[in-house]
Amino acid sequence: MLIRTHVGVSLDGFVATPDGLPAWDAMLTFGPGSHGNDEFSAQCAAVVIGRTSFDQGFEVGHWLPDWPYAGKQVYVLTSRPLPAKATEMGIVASRGGPAGLVEQLRGAGLAGDVQVLGGARTIQAFLEVGALDRLGMVVLPVLLGKGIPLFPLEIATFSRETWEASLAAPNEAAARPPLRLEDERVFPDGAVELVYRPES
Amino acid sequence: MLIRTHVGVSLDGFVATPDGLPAWDAMLTFGPGSHGNDEFSAQCAAVVIGRTSFDQGFEVGHWLPDWPYAGKQVYVLTSRPLPAKATEMGIVASRGGPAGLVEQLRGAGLAGDVQVLGGARTIQAFLEVGALDRLGMVVLPVLLGKGIPLFPLEIATFSRETWEASLAAPNEAAARPPLRLEDERVFPDGAVELVYRPES
Repeated sequence: MLIRTHVGVSLDGFVATPDGLPAWDAMLTFGPGSHGNDEFSAQCAAVVIGRTSFDQGFEVGHWLPDWPYAGKQVYVLTSRPLPAKATEMGIVASRGGPAGLVEQLRGAGLAGDVQVLGGARTIQAFLEVGALDRLGMVVLPVLLGKGIPLFPLEIATFSRETWEASLAAPNEAAARPPLRLEDERVFPDGAVELVYRPES
Repeated sequence: MLIRTHVGVSLDGFVATPDGLPAWDAMLTFGPGSHGNDEFSAQCAAVVIGRTSFDQGFEVGHWLPDWPYAGKQVYVLTSRPLPAKATEMGIVASRGGPAGLVEQLRGAGLAGDVQVLGGARTIQAFLEVGALDRLGMVVLPVLLGKGIPLFPLEIATFSRETWEASLAAPNEAAARPPLRLEDERVFPDGAVELVYRPES
């Protein structure tokens, strides 16, 4: 059982617009089963969704009655109880944050992999506790300019003053150990799938 | 004559650390000629550098006496005169901003392509005036977490409130037209070169 992502990311690193609409939607070529999504989904027995994304789809959006995760065990990363309707459908709330949810997943005897669907904060949480076995993304050939980035970003601006200051007192190298590229492929529309194995 | 980049970018989109050190340096596998750099350089007759990067290398850093662009015509995107030493070496200052510089390049009768070296703002300026014929990047399998991003980013955070507000008044779709993927290759260390042709 591997914990994996298969997330569409714009070339400038956004998984969603400021409205929370998936970067996938920027591609006219995106549709049911495109970009390896069916193939990926077939390998997964369970789906993990963060609470904000879950509420967006389940309550505010229009997931019901056309529930997109039929046949999957769905877990929600949350610190609050789920709506009764969700519990009746067998959707499971996490216990004890990301690390606790990983325990739940490992103990569930799942007959397949786990898709960490998102949002970005949930993917980041799994990365941070070292629980993401494969960081898979599909780099879409489009620039969004603004939105919700996949990774937490601390943005610096560069100036002569910055450089001169850094000569006097260099920052620590910020890079984490490199990730291992496990797989890559190119789709006809120029989207590129990259699958990494984070070092843990 | 094509105007091109071949810039190392971390997986989270940074071309440099907050200190202005290239993302390339995060890779132990980076060295002279690695990652297609020699091959790329051999195709280029000229190099474009933004003023901040130029000053970093030319004045504060240690480019001289080991001048790394011997045999290339060097252009600096700047609104201020260059140091006399640079002018004596044949380094050319831009006239009239990015669009003016593009005119200079097109009129120079160069026997090869032009590398837009950076920094990020200079690459962005060429993209914005539609003058970048090829956006080439090497995606390095490393997360920097902070630094100078390749693209200008407007970062949004997502919440239930954002989503509800957007249902009432959706944002304009922010995506520009898709870019065309022209080329891609994988290096042994897991770095992935992606070359796009921006639509103009």
